[in-house]
Amino acid sequence: MFPALCGALLILAFKPSAFANEKFQYEIKEFSVPLDHFSFLSNESFNIRYLCNDSYVDKSNLEPPIFFYTGNEGDIEWFAQNSGFVWELAAKQRALVVFAEHRYYGKSMPYGADTFNTSKPEHLAYFTVEQTLEDYAQLITYLRNGKRLPVVAFGGSYGGMLAAWFRMKYPHIVVGALAASAPILQFSGLTPCDIFNKITTSVFATAYNANCSVNIGKSWKAFESMAATDAGKKQLGDIFHVCNAIKNADDLKNFMDYLEEVYGNLAMANYPYNSTFLSPLPANPVRQLCFYLKDLHQNDTDLVASMASALAVYTNYTGSTKCLDYNDSNAGANYDSKGWDIQSCNQMVMPMCANSSDTMFRTSNWDFKEVSDKCYKQFHITPKAYDIVLRYGGRDLEAASNIIFSNGLLDPWSGGGVLSAPNNQIHVIILPEGAHHLDLRQSNPLDPASVTSARQKEAEIIAQWISHF
Amino acid sequence: MFPALCGALLILAFKPSAFANEKFQYEIKEFSVPLDHFSFLSNESFNIRYLCNDSYVDKSNLEPPIFFYTGNEGDIEWFAQNSGFVWELAAKQRALVVFAEHRYYGKSMPYGADTFNTSKPEHLAYFTVEQTLEDYAQLITYLRNGKRLPVVAFGGSYGGMLAAWFRMKYPHIVVGALAASAPILQFSGLTPCDIFNKITTSVFATAYNANCSVNIGKSWKAFESMAATDAGKKQLGDIFHVCNAIKNADDLKNFMDYLEEVYGNLAMANYPYNSTFLSPLPANPVRQLCFYLKDLHQNDTDLVASMASALAVYTNYTGSTKCLDYNDSNAGANYDSKGWDIQSCNQMVMPMCANSSDTMFRTSNWDFKEVSDKCYKQFHITPKAYDIVLRYGGRDLEAASNIIFSNGLLDPWSGGGVLSAPNNQIHVIILPEGAHHLDLRQSNPLDPASVTSARQKEAEIIAQWISHF
Repeated sequence: MFPALCGALLILAFKPSAFANEKFQYEIKEFSVPLDHFSFLSNESFNIRYLCNDSYVDKSNLEPPIFFYTGNEGDIEWFAQNSGFVWELAAKQRALVVFAEHRYYGKSMPYGADTFNTSKPEHLAYFTVEQTLEDYAQLITYLRNGKRLPVVAFGGSYGGMLAAWFRMKYPHIVVGALAASAPILQFSGLTPCDIFNKITTSVFATAYNANCSVNIGKSWKAFESMAATDAGKKQLGDIFHVCNAIKNADDLKNFMDYLEEVYGNLAMANYPYNSTFLSPLPANPVRQLCFYLKDLHQNDTDLVASMASALAVYTNYTGSTKCLDYNDSNAGANYDSKGWDIQSCNQMVMPMCANSSDTMFRTSNWDFKEVSDKCYKQFHITPKAYDIVLRYGGRDLEAASNIIFSNGLLDPWSGGGVLSAPNNQIHVIILPEGAHHLDLRQSNPLDPASVTSARQKEAEIIAQWISHF
Repeated sequence: MFPALCGALLILAFKPSAFANEKFQYEIKEFSVPLDHFSFLSNESFNIRYLCNDSYVDKSNLEPPIFFYTGNEGDIEWFAQNSGFVWELAAKQRALVVFAEHRYYGKSMPYGADTFNTSKPEHLAYFTVEQTLEDYAQLITYLRNGKRLPVVAFGGSYGGMLAAWFRMKYPHIVVGALAASAPILQFSGLTPCDIFNKITTSVFATAYNANCSVNIGKSWKAFESMAATDAGKKQLGDIFHVCNAIKNADDLKNFMDYLEEVYGNLAMANYPYNSTFLSPLPANPVRQLCFYLKDLHQNDTDLVASMASALAVYTNYTGSTKCLDYNDSNAGANYDSKGWDIQSCNQMVMPMCANSSDTMFRTSNWDFKEVSDKCYKQFHITPKAYDIVLRYGGRDLEAASNIIFSNGLLDPWSGGGVLSAPNNQIHVIILPEGAHHLDLRQSNPLDPASVTSARQKEAEIIAQWISHF
């Protein structure tokens, strides 16, 4: 009898899943981890979920590779469905596929439904990068079952950061890591805080014609002018079909914050084909949006009306959205903003700012004190802005090895990515036509050539890691 | 004005010190560290001590090297005085010298005099390798003061393990590490548990003549025979000048445990010149002891009498010891056994055993369950026997770089050391005539040639790290 590669001890059986009809199939399992790996204060533990599929494995191979996705800020099933490259490559290289869910996301909650109870500081205390990497190290050690198996870490975005850091800190556990669109340099003192918004602006300025970013840049004043009167506020709300009327300055600010969030999300998910990654979107959504903004408008009402048509590309591509909920700080995206809000308040302090003179965004400064005060008020957490740099080295990556950093130049996060290799064991792959971790997605006939060749190169490097193991 | 290299903020001034008359001089300072680096549960902090000397630094060099000793299980002043090579090399390479005290040792107590209060589990909870390395990373970051300075980690024994692990996990903070006599492989599943006692036996068998280890091997039965009667117990105690009479089986066991501890300590401190490292000892102390055991004895009384004479080499070299305190589990050595007992009960679970058929020791098995139960009873701590291997990779060191592992073949800890290099960026230096981290000690006319040449090679490698930085 062949031993159960997906782990025999803690099987949760086949749960009916919200993603059950999706293309990639897996068993859903659970694995017990200590709540706190780094002290001897308590022996509490809880279960994290992982998805596992051993169908690609050559059963005569006693040391099959494991492709291990280091889960990030959301339900792990969402990442499994949006990381098709992992599955395609696993099929080719006959690997065991594992997607591990990040603690405090999806169904991997240390305190169940009460996890985010901010009146209990101990509930949020162990929501850190280091605890999470340790969860993954223990899960892999369990899956290896005493055997020497080559494990490759995969991740996109924050998951890519985790994959890279995992290889840096646990090179004996993972032979290498594909860190797709991983902005590990988007931290204090490493990268200018306006880079994200500059890249986003550039994407919008070049997607259709330059009027797109000019119109967006002018829209903020148009919104403010229109909202100067109560009638104007109502008109603005009506044009955008908002769910909650814009009644005051706070509402207007939330509305504009929402739009800025949308532009960032659009640039990230600016894929060459329809997708449902952050929200249901057409192919080349920025171009689609910019089509509605191709003409410069002389009066505010025309501009605002065009903006509303343009925005619907993001907010109502399906045509089924009843109204625009601008109070959703997540701008309708699929990831778990609750968890991420907490991580941005403990370790993942990634400074953001913008200048209206060289971007389409409103001017905003990075004020750590303000951020810190807000974090304390909201979660009773004081951010440690330098934790990540202290532990993972910032730009000083000379000692790292076997990591592929891939970045799409259309991706606003590429500004905080690793774009030049510190040594010849680190591979930097640039996708000029790529949005946020496009290379990690399932291959598609509409993929640009640079993405196809990037995946090929990634596959070669990963095959080398495995064969050298 | 030249900025204070030793750190300006938290100066503790020049404290009168027990070691004030010793050869190496330094300022004694303190640095505040979080009690728990890895959770957001509390904001508590406490001070660790460090010793600092900037007198060797070329003040015109704006980026001087830092030689950073990663303190281990004892008062840091003790290590500073017993690691002369660091000082000698700092003088040559014009480095800032820093000796950092390990949390929970010396005067670096998180809860002051109440630190080891075992009825308060939170007091001992943060006494881990990872918390300690993070202390050192923060201290170095503070000392660097924003500058890019080459930092070399030094350490002997457990301090050497910390130095090696520090380089592995924080390569952006230390350019390299000299790990002298660092038994990083003395953990479950990596190294046979009897290796320490086998090497010790071999040292005793070859120091003068082979009768030495034979006599010691026979002594256990002789003690037991003699102690079979009350009169015999008294006789045994009298011969050894014990402080507390041997009255029962427990006392006899403690007495024999003590002797085994002494043999290990003697092998470690078997230096070619007088030393006061573990206790005041003559040059080549094992040879001195074995001189008293050069003849095989036919009867128990003669053997026991010879043993007592032999043991005095360790227990009363100064001639001022009033009696032998066999209840001192530390066998009179200078290190802090209280702290180490706790570390052996949380992470530093280093299996030990012996077989009387091939060593001079009594047969003893490694029984983790027994150890674990004892730890829980004593400290309310359940050991995590696999923490260290999971985190630092055991024998899988392929991805590590810039570490010198030096081991003396006369050192019983060399059995758990790294004796072959996993890659060409790891340097293995073997000292055939070296005891426990002899190379880290101040140079001495009586040093064997292998030690002098080892230090030279170490100096060259370290100079290369600094110049390549």
